[in-house]
Amino acid sequence: VNDAPGASSPLITLTTDFGQDDGYVGAMKGAMLSIAPTARVVDLTHGIRPQDVRSGAYALWQAVPYWPAATVHVAVVDPGVGTNRRGLAIAAGGQLLVGPDNGLLAWAAQRLGAGDLVGDVLRIGEHGQAVALEAPAFWRPAPSSSFHGRDVFGPVAAHLAAGLALHQLGPMVSTIIAMPWPRPEVVDGGWMVEVVHVDRFGNLVTALSRDLLAGRDVVVRVGDRWIAGLSPHYQQDGELIALIGSEGLLEVAAPNGSAASTSGLGVGACLQVLLRD
Amino acid sequence: VNDAPGASSPLITLTTDFGQDDGYVGAMKGAMLSIAPTARVVDLTHGIRPQDVRSGAYALWQAVPYWPAATVHVAVVDPGVGTNRRGLAIAAGGQLLVGPDNGLLAWAAQRLGAGDLVGDVLRIGEHGQAVALEAPAFWRPAPSSSFHGRDVFGPVAAHLAAGLALHQLGPMVSTIIAMPWPRPEVVDGGWMVEVVHVDRFGNLVTALSRDLLAGRDVVVRVGDRWIAGLSPHYQQDGELIALIGSEGLLEVAAPNGSAASTSGLGVGACLQVLLRD
Amino acid sequence: VNDAPGASSPLITLTTDFGQDDGYVGAMKGAMLSIAPTARVVDLTHGIRPQDVRSGAYALWQAVPYWPAATVHVAVVDPGVGTNRRGLAIAAGGQLLVGPDNGLLAWAAQRLGAGDLVGDVLRIGEHGQAVALEAPAFWRPAPSSSFHGRDVFGPVAAHLAAGLALHQLGPMVSTIIAMPWPRPEVVDGGWMVEVVHVDRFGNLVTALSRDLLAGRDVVVRVGDRWIAGLSPHYQQDGELIALIGSEGLLEVAAPNGSAASTSGLGVGACLQVLLRD
Repeated sequence: VNDAPGASSPLITLTTDFGQDDGYVGAMKGAMLSIAPTARVVDLTHGIRPQDVRSGAYALWQAVPYWPAATVHVAVVDPGVGTNRRGLAIAAGGQLLVGPDNGLLAWAAQRLGAGDLVGDVLRIGEHGQAVALEAPAFWRPAPSSSFHGRDVFGPVAAHLAAGLALHQLGPMVSTIIAMPWPRPEVVDGGWMVEVVHVDRFGNLVTALSRDLLAGRDVVVRVGDRWIAGLSPHYQQDGELIALIGSEGLLEVAAPNGSAASTSGLGVGACLQVLLRD
Repeated sequence: VNDAPGASSPLITLTTDFGQDDGYVGAMKGAMLSIAPTARVVDLTHGIRPQDVRSGAYALWQAVPYWPAATVHVAVVDPGVGTNRRGLAIAAGGQLLVGPDNGLLAWAAQRLGAGDLVGDVLRIGEHGQAVALEAPAFWRPAPSSSFHGRDVFGPVAAHLAAGLALHQLGPMVSTIIAMPWPRPEVVDGGWMVEVVHVDRFGNLVTALSRDLLAGRDVVVRVGDRWIAGLSPHYQQDGELIALIGSEGLLEVAAPNGSAASTSGLGVGACLQVLLRD
Repeated sequence: VNDAPGASSPLITLTTDFGQDDGYVGAMKGAMLSIAPTARVVDLTHGIRPQDVRSGAYALWQAVPYWPAATVHVAVVDPGVGTNRRGLAIAAGGQLLVGPDNGLLAWAAQRLGAGDLVGDVLRIGEHGQAVALEAPAFWRPAPSSSFHGRDVFGPVAAHLAAGLALHQLGPMVSTIIAMPWPRPEVVDGGWMVEVVHVDRFGNLVTALSRDLLAGRDVVVRVGDRWIAGLSPHYQQDGELIALIGSEGLLEVAAPNGSAASTSGLGVGACLQVLLRD
């Protein structure tokens, strides 16, 4: 018996590309609450761009570290639904992740301590567990081939929230599919670093962690502009500014505007970051 | 006393065209939680296009079958608010529906077993009950003429969630307004069938049920293109493909794109579906 | 001990400009539920236009009066995050508000009875209490300078929901920043009145309260058009109509369209309202 605070009403979060035009979100929530009738179902986002697995992976990576133990996160950005791509459930850091094996879960799983990113896979380590979803007993009967959020992932998440043990869902797997997390490339005097995400405010978030800078100041080249120094916050003069964002990553922002629009750059663009003398 | 699991925190779902720019959703949720303070209020969608009753009806139809008994679904897409259009509460299949009598609730009510669609009405049958909302005791005092989500439908839904009996809300009614569900027209070798919904992914969902096909394969004409055969899933070669969607309806999709954009077609368009030799 | 109905699962509402593209909402919700594990976290909106403090203030003003006692509303539209702008927690009308001191909370606080709007401040009165957030014990450790929703406001709201007393959060303050609420200007035969909000439906909501009219009929000038008389509801003939909206304010609507698009007017535009003979 789980007697953690809140255990009588377990938490299930949702991250999808289902949007706001249809009943997909509603059907999936209903399917989960039919299995876990006391759960609290909490929206992370349903606004991931259709089939943009990478943005879904980033949103999940950004959110999961802040959740309490026993939370079940179900994510569905799933262009391969109905093919032979696997479904996954992962336990790490006291939390649970459920979704397709297409890279969507890997960054969040790594961040929760499930294992190590090696190229385009996540190798499950000693602090994580992952299973392939192969036990139809925990799905909706006669699942569709086009809506596994409602028919497979949602029901599995609800069974986990209601207390089912991970190993009942299917066989253990040792690696899952991951998108490579771009590593800063060392160049003379600094790094070339990729934009990993553009957020709602048009901020260009890079893969350069604050830890690499070790407190030193930088100059950042964005297209043909140079930004000198890090700003302490967004309310700063200048067309473009650089600062350390809320996940400890270097980002470029446009005060009162969108750095993505101002610079014309997006995910995958490369910025040069040089240590200042 | 209701001692079903979850009964101590009843479920109320919301489907509206209120969007994300205002405090309408917030006011309505507050009004409900002031009446049913332990309820769980769950968003289906607030992104129905303004005053698009048909899309709201489709979203609700798509979601309700998956919810547990005793759920109260309140829906507000209500261009006639403040006129003499009726408000309704409907019980069917163990669930409850609340909203305006403008067609919004009828498809969902029919799907829950409330009765039969006959032209542009739903005739309430022996497994359903419907009442007209005529008891102001269960509304907010001095309701506005422009926001019945907050002042009438939300409060009524909350009272039902808190245990009020349906018949206390007003007199029984035997028919409610419905939009006709387009029936496939039999033609030589197959059917002409209408697009009933375009989803977020641009899929063209038709009114042709899988049951009609009885396992036989088809050719589908979409504008001046022909699609040969049904695909098992969305990840398929071809500019346009046809498949059976998650509600058992024939739909046309564009792998990695939008069938609506590719074809230029939308709700109400007619597709020809021919049985394959 | 709080033994109000629902107290075992306290209510926290969210109003932000975080949108649907990222994990910001998810991170903030997780941070709150880690502190108040039994809370019900309810979305008011995350669709406030980036950094549009005024629209956030309006949405909150529109929603809060309808919520039950003990609700905690946390709002984050915060272009000045990381600067020396203060954080606030406010108690009024039995409810609590948390957010930045940039005008976002003031209209809602005034509506709950916290005090009086005087120019560009709200003076806290005898029925309200406000504190500046200066006790890091109730924040996340090492808060970022760019995401106080997750690191300061969310945690503070969760501690309040879990029962913390307001005065533990920091020193009392006697005024908070407010945007002026535009007062109708008396002119010969009526008023000049500003548009304070444009809602999702394109309705132009003005600052003219029904109370001022005292039941008398009006003529409204919108650009170069004249609207004669008040309509009882939106389903009315006419390109533009005037009516009393759901907050008791005069508004201009376009039946089956958007008054903002039809008129080309928006927030801050002035309309002439004349009493009819």
